[in-house]
Amino acid sequence: MSTITTVGVDADDTLWHCESLFRLSHARFLELLSEHGDPEKIEAQLTAVEKRNLRVYGYGAKGFTLSMIETALEVTDGLVDTRVIREILAVGREMLTEPIEPLPGVENALSALSDRYRLILITKGDLLHQEQKLASSGLGDYFVAVEIVSEKDADTYRRVFDRYGTGAEQAVMAGNSMRSDVLPALDAGCWGALIPYPLVWSHEAADAPLGHPRYVELGSISELPAWVDGVSKSLSL
Amino acid sequence: MSTITTVGVDADDTLWHCESLFRLSHARFLELLSEHGDPEKIEAQLTAVEKRNLRVYGYGAKGFTLSMIETALEVTDGLVDTRVIREILAVGREMLTEPIEPLPGVENALSALSDRYRLILITKGDLLHQEQKLASSGLGDYFVAVEIVSEKDADTYRRVFDRYGTGAEQAVMAGNSMRSDVLPALDAGCWGALIPYPLVWSHEAADAPLGHPRYVELGSISELPAWVDGVSKSLSL
Repeated sequence: MSTITTVGVDADDTLWHCESLFRLSHARFLELLSEHGDPEKIEAQLTAVEKRNLRVYGYGAKGFTLSMIETALEVTDGLVDTRVIREILAVGREMLTEPIEPLPGVENALSALSDRYRLILITKGDLLHQEQKLASSGLGDYFVAVEIVSEKDADTYRRVFDRYGTGAEQAVMAGNSMRSDVLPALDAGCWGALIPYPLVWSHEAADAPLGHPRYVELGSISELPAWVDGVSKSLSL
Repeated sequence: MSTITTVGVDADDTLWHCESLFRLSHARFLELLSEHGDPEKIEAQLTAVEKRNLRVYGYGAKGFTLSMIETALEVTDGLVDTRVIREILAVGREMLTEPIEPLPGVENALSALSDRYRLILITKGDLLHQEQKLASSGLGDYFVAVEIVSEKDADTYRRVFDRYGTGAEQAVMAGNSMRSDVLPALDAGCWGALIPYPLVWSHEAADAPLGHPRYVELGSISELPAWVDGVSKSLSL
């Protein structure tokens, strides 16, 4: 009898705020460089530097901090005051040490899910920082496993749900990123639930797989346990 | 019948050079700041900043780059030329993109071990960078699992050898760091083999557990397969 045994959830912007912190850091960065040119151009340059560095630095606040410093040097032709560099280091450090509060509804949803399914945290980003955020959130006990990965593709989901669950076909993946959480999980054979967050990093945007039989867009994470129960029930019929 | 089923090996400075790259980067950093004071004092300050930041940045080249920038600002009272900051970013980027060559004897040893045991790579550091180094080294196929962890303590080894092997008591852990690879693995109940590398980061130094029944110091990784075979044989008697 087929059924859902395992639920994977994303962390940043699914369980707690993250992109809002990056936006805030972007804003503080533009403020620091306000005398050096048009904020829109500087912002565009920062985005370009971030994307260019993604292959080398990967995801996370440390790489973002290095990209902010590089951008500050570039847009000012090296004329940036070193106090600005010092401030950028402080912005990066704050991102890494910010206390983490679960988003509304998260705690109840994880509690319900962990009663009935194997719950796995699957997140990209910086290893130490993601572990620290999970610890700070107080949500660690709901998960039977935590997988911090450098990229989320279909192989990642197959591997994780084979290792900790009973395969991708009996797993749901839920998260706020269409590109990282939903589409590759569907490709792997999982069920995929989009839990929208008001802000989406441009790198994570993608079209919805409308009409896909295993896809749903939920209003919030509070709806996730009931949806998983429904899928699980329909599979077991 | 008890026997050895699983062998864990460390990566940096066990399979390929790493500390030598950090030393080289230290040297280039001191050169860049040579007009700003006594190299020994600047070096001591860099080491202090690195240790202070370890809790927030963790291990790896990105955090080290941020620590170099912070040190440059500190030791010059903010008077450092921004060209120096640019150079530091370049040093960091080179550390992250350096091609990786296996150390002598590594390839043969891993080949022999992987024929007879489950071979697991267990390493600290930056997730993306360690994955990239493993890919660049060409050694990935020897391992049944790769665990990149933020800290190596006895719990880490218990967890990894439970998950991928048959428990710590039937596992050998081998690496160049007494403090990270050997002592906590012995604590967990593993057998531990030190494979010395000429340079040891001061943070990783510790006294040898002389007389410990499950500890050995080998001359090189080439001796590891025979030692593991010997342990395994003695256990099975």
